[in-house]
Amino acid sequence: MHQVTEIALGADLLSANKRIAESNLKLLRSKGIKSFDFVGSIGSGKTLIAENLIDILKAKGMRPGAIAGDVAGDDDYRRFSSHGIPVVNLNTGKECHLDAHLVDHALEELPLDKIDVLFIENVGNLVCPGDFPLGTDKRVVIISVTEGDDMVRKHPLIFAMSDVIVINKIDLASAVDVDPQVLVKDAKKVNPRAPVLLTDAKHGKGLKEVMEALGL
Amino acid sequence: MHQVTEIALGADLLSANKRIAESNLKLLRSKGIKSFDFVGSIGSGKTLIAENLIDILKAKGMRPGAIAGDVAGDDDYRRFSSHGIPVVNLNTGKECHLDAHLVDHALEELPLDKIDVLFIENVGNLVCPGDFPLGTDKRVVIISVTEGDDMVRKHPLIFAMSDVIVINKIDLASAVDVDPQVLVKDAKKVNPRAPVLLTDAKHGKGLKEVMEALGL
Repeated sequence: MHQVTEIALGADLLSANKRIAESNLKLLRSKGIKSFDFVGSIGSGKTLIAENLIDILKAKGMRPGAIAGDVAGDDDYRRFSSHGIPVVNLNTGKECHLDAHLVDHALEELPLDKIDVLFIENVGNLVCPGDFPLGTDKRVVIISVTEGDDMVRKHPLIFAMSDVIVINKIDLASAVDVDPQVLVKDAKKVNPRAPVLLTDAKHGKGLKEVMEALGL
Repeated sequence: MHQVTEIALGADLLSANKRIAESNLKLLRSKGIKSFDFVGSIGSGKTLIAENLIDILKAKGMRPGAIAGDVAGDDDYRRFSSHGIPVVNLNTGKECHLDAHLVDHALEELPLDKIDVLFIENVGNLVCPGDFPLGTDKRVVIISVTEGDDMVRKHPLIFAMSDVIVINKIDLASAVDVDPQVLVKDAKKVNPRAPVLLTDAKHGKGLKEVMEALGL
């Protein structure tokens, strides 16, 4: 019985999310803001890669902004804030993903006329964010080699639904006995249209290619 | 409007899960099986730690079994099977956690009379499994230092709701600039009653302490 209810409710929630996502994207584009949804598992390097891109953008005279999504805490919010940019902290409480409605409220708090590029860092999770587009130009999925070479096979959907795929921490590949090319091959199989990029964000490697893939 | 529906439905699902979990645990105990729910983020080392414990148990003449939970694929199932033990593969499709009902069905497929210790590996996720007890003696949360030193602060609930906390991959701590003691301190703050153990499963370190914490 409640399975039927659940499906109906799910469809309702998803279509409502889609409508709000479209409205978010329209607002962002009307302000000339390029926007990106960074998804990926916990500790894959989403924050560090965004921080690196923020520094590069600032050096070019551009004005980045960020939304830091997490279940709890303000660790990422504080990291973004330290770059002197506008940031909103979004704590989901118990939810395992951001949704368009939460982002809608965060956009109300951001000075959109003073932002050129917006990074939205989703909750660290490779499953839940898949169904909830936020209303960004591109979705970027970031994983790290330390998660194992079976990562794409275990979570094909989020890779299929992303526009750019980043495999981070390649400096640790040999320490964890993972061949990044296995991940690259699996990713290309699941999503032939998305560029697959290798980065070592800790040492600033591969970020130029990420900038290009994002059209920045 | 649909928020209310969601809450009512959620409560119904959670109480149904709790009932089935209690029935699972009763069944397992009636068969003299000690059971453990391994939760943790992707690539934290859940499978490898379970594999190590399986080998130790087999060397002691005990009979381990496993349930491998994943969104997709059979990588972990094949890893467990290679140890010559009974294993059931549970693919959740799009769900970000196992639940008691799925485990109930998996138990029907396992030769319970030939198992002394059952390891249930949950989907790699630090958020979703929290609300869904499966019906095991203990829940064990496993994270790795490569996920960053803010992991406990970002996901306090799952640590508060676990019986044993394992921090793995401590051999990589200096490579990723993470002090394991920060994680230990945060974990003890969130959950003063659970033992917090440091492991390097790849090199077989700290497993004796895990065995003891599980009462094995």
